[in-house]
Amino acid sequence: KSLRGLGMELRCRCIETESRQIRRHVKEVEIIPANSHCEESEIIATLKITGLKVCLDPEAPWVKKAIEWWMSSRRS
Amino acid sequence: KSLRGLGMELRCRCIETESRQIRRHVKEVEIIPANSHCEESEIIATLKITGLKVCLDPEAPWVKKAIEWWMSSRRS
Repeated sequence: KSLRGLGMELRCRCIETESRQIRRHVKEVEIIPANSHCEESEIIATLKITGLKVCLDPEAPWVKKAIEWWMSSRRS
Repeated sequence: KSLRGLGMELRCRCIETESRQIRRHVKEVEIIPANSHCEESEIIATLKITGLKVCLDPEAPWVKKAIEWWMSSRRS
């Protein structure tokens, strides 16, 4: 096996996921579909202010709703 | 105004969006909700193999479906 890209992780990045509803604290979110190194999709949110990264559960109903919210968000 | 975080962009990152359906070529995707520097949400996809970054239209039906697909993907 060869490396496909620099900085690519060779295993899952999330150990556990945040269960609390933290939608308002999220600055941006990264979705990593399942791939040859990790058999489940992963969602990594970067928090406002602290910049901390936390993993979210792709199957949690609040996360699915939050993704829709973030995608459709428009500053008014 | 003060800077909230290192490396934070102070304007929208996307100039134009990819209209073609490129779901299969995406390695990961970043969602940036609207914020004080950009009035619309932005979606930046990183492509497999080349690592190129392209912007996707958050309102395009194929993009919405692709996000659901990426979130629910599971290697079988």
